Amino acid sequence: MSLVRVAMVGLGNVGGSFLQLITAKRHLLATQYGLEIQVVAAADSGGAAWSAVGLDPQRLLALKQSGQSAAAYPGAGQPGQTALEMLARIQAECLEPMCLLESSPVNLDHGQPGLDVLRTTLRLGMDAVLANKGPLVLAYQELATLSQVQNRRLRFSATVCSSLPTMNIGRRDLVACQIERMEGIFTSTTNYILTAMAAGKSFAAALQDAQDEGVAETDPSLDIDGWDTANKLVILANSVLGQPTTIRDVSVSGIRGITQQDLLLTRQNGAELKLVALAARLADGSYHLSVEPRVLPAHHPLAQTHGWQMGILYVTDIMGELFARVDERGPLPTAAAMLRDLIDLYCV
Amino acid sequence: MSLVRVAMVGLGNVGGSFLQLITAKRHLLATQYGLEIQVVAAADSGGAAWSAVGLDPQRLLALKQSGQSAAAYPGAGQPGQTALEMLARIQAECLEPMCLLESSPVNLDHGQPGLDVLRTTLRLGMDAVLANKGPLVLAYQELATLSQVQNRRLRFSATVCSSLPTMNIGRRDLVACQIERMEGIFTSTTNYILTAMAAGKSFAAALQDAQDEGVAETDPSLDIDGWDTANKLVILANSVLGQPTTIRDVSVSGIRGITQQDLLLTRQNGAELKLVALAARLADGSYHLSVEPRVLPAHHPLAQTHGWQMGILYVTDIMGELFARVDERGPLPTAAAMLRDLIDLYCV
Repeated sequence: MSLVRVAMVGLGNVGGSFLQLITAKRHLLATQYGLEIQVVAAADSGGAAWSAVGLDPQRLLALKQSGQSAAAYPGAGQPGQTALEMLARIQAECLEPMCLLESSPVNLDHGQPGLDVLRTTLRLGMDAVLANKGPLVLAYQELATLSQVQNRRLRFSATVCSSLPTMNIGRRDLVACQIERMEGIFTSTTNYILTAMAAGKSFAAALQDAQDEGVAETDPSLDIDGWDTANKLVILANSVLGQPTTIRDVSVSGIRGITQQDLLLTRQNGAELKLVALAARLADGSYHLSVEPRVLPAHHPLAQTHGWQMGILYVTDIMGELFARVDERGPLPTAAAMLRDLIDLYCV
Repeated sequence: MSLVRVAMVGLGNVGGSFLQLITAKRHLLATQYGLEIQVVAAADSGGAAWSAVGLDPQRLLALKQSGQSAAAYPGAGQPGQTALEMLARIQAECLEPMCLLESSPVNLDHGQPGLDVLRTTLRLGMDAVLANKGPLVLAYQELATLSQVQNRRLRFSATVCSSLPTMNIGRRDLVACQIERMEGIFTSTTNYILTAMAAGKSFAAALQDAQDEGVAETDPSLDIDGWDTANKLVILANSVLGQPTTIRDVSVSGIRGITQQDLLLTRQNGAELKLVALAARLADGSYHLSVEPRVLPAHHPLAQTHGWQMGILYVTDIMGELFARVDERGPLPTAAAMLRDLIDLYCV
């Protein structure tokens, strides 16, 4: 049995689902992977809690479900303590968690608080598993270098299409391949909207549906204007294609200008209109990166990727064309992808 | 740099492609994975060759391409020496290869020569990478136990749909999942025949096409009657679903009875007829295993898997529904999958 002590930053939908998951899968994790997970610290926007004997996942969950902060945890709560302060304190108290689980809210302007939390985590000698794209989109190369210098490990398979193993396929399965092209539908909200519009809904009604499902952001521009897809493309370009990339390297155009008419006409012509992330290998070995609405022939695998589905196509030199698609929704698969990374780090 | 010495058994299409691959990718393997592969021994049906300083992959290839055996290798050839004799001799000569690469012809009655080669390999303390399904279909549990006892490792991702990572997705990506159902199209020949018949070809003409492409066996009954698909299901049931399984546990029915009329009628009804491998989880936690022609609704991902494509669908409890499909042909992707396994063993 390996005991893995973790510190959690972010206890929203994903963090909460992670707590549910490790409770529900406790027996399976022990028998199948020899893994016991102990949550020694947790921080949210209201404060933190930490304890040398571990926090009870069920009690943390109950606090969140009643609208309270982890800081209200009996005997261990630290009202107003930030995640950074928590990390310093648990270090001083020798709690020594091995891994940080970061699922705090995405911020794409400055990446905080996730970015500083991650820098501190690596400097303190912990590994990290991320569900939060922000720090990677803004500072991928810095974080990759820092983790190398500190001899620590970063995992972030949840950040691009959650349970769809976009990165694992690219890095662990397409081994020794030259990737000629990578194409993907990475944002389920925009794909849902396009599918609903092609079936006759107005843009506004389709967006409202997505928001009612709780999947679209209240400010939907991140999705609609293609930035969410582009952010995921940035992470894949860095991690799978090996090309140092920031958001400025991606040509981005969203679906705001698409009309129902466009979608119906495209379908009448036996094709589909989709918001596609594309990495195309150029003659010099670099990749041209773009996100834009594309007309795809009906037999294209992404043309058959509808509604909430997300998908990725890799075109390679020695392993043919590999396509993978996921049909899932909600925070549970994202939390499951974090658990996958944790097992990859400590149970191989 | 890690130097990995390998012994090859089987130098047909797959073995030959492997030799081409390690030559073409030599630089990439060194720079990207720090891996140098040295072929110290090779056996085919005409004999063997081995050398402490390594065999030249290009020279081995040239022999095969001119219709000769590895036994004709200048200075290292051993005419008439069997693979088993070769393994004993290179052990006695302290050549100590670390890994066997087995791609000898599949035999599903007795699994030889692959099965005994594998037993000997594990007993001699080598790891093994297989492209040959035979030994696994006939003796999965024995080989798994033997490799555990000998503290050696077996990899065989090439045996089920070659470059499609059926096993890696099931074992490394769907971590901590309960797999409720697994469905797949695992034989490209039968899928090609069904697709061609649905487009108007007769069974005989479609089969002839497949044979002309060199993909179907000369005796096509293994594919047509569902046994090739069933063999792959046996390997996945053992390795991914964790259910000790032999071919007798699979209910098998092939496509011999399918008429063009069946296919056309099914398509007229908005569905597709496919040869599907199915593992369905029962209330007691075991899986019911079957291979049979099934009518799939048009939106089912396997209904959209046509021609030479192969695909697999996993339905899970915590990661949604994950589908993966490959479009490839010929022995190169199979050899590439063996290389993937080799890198997984020595470069992680």
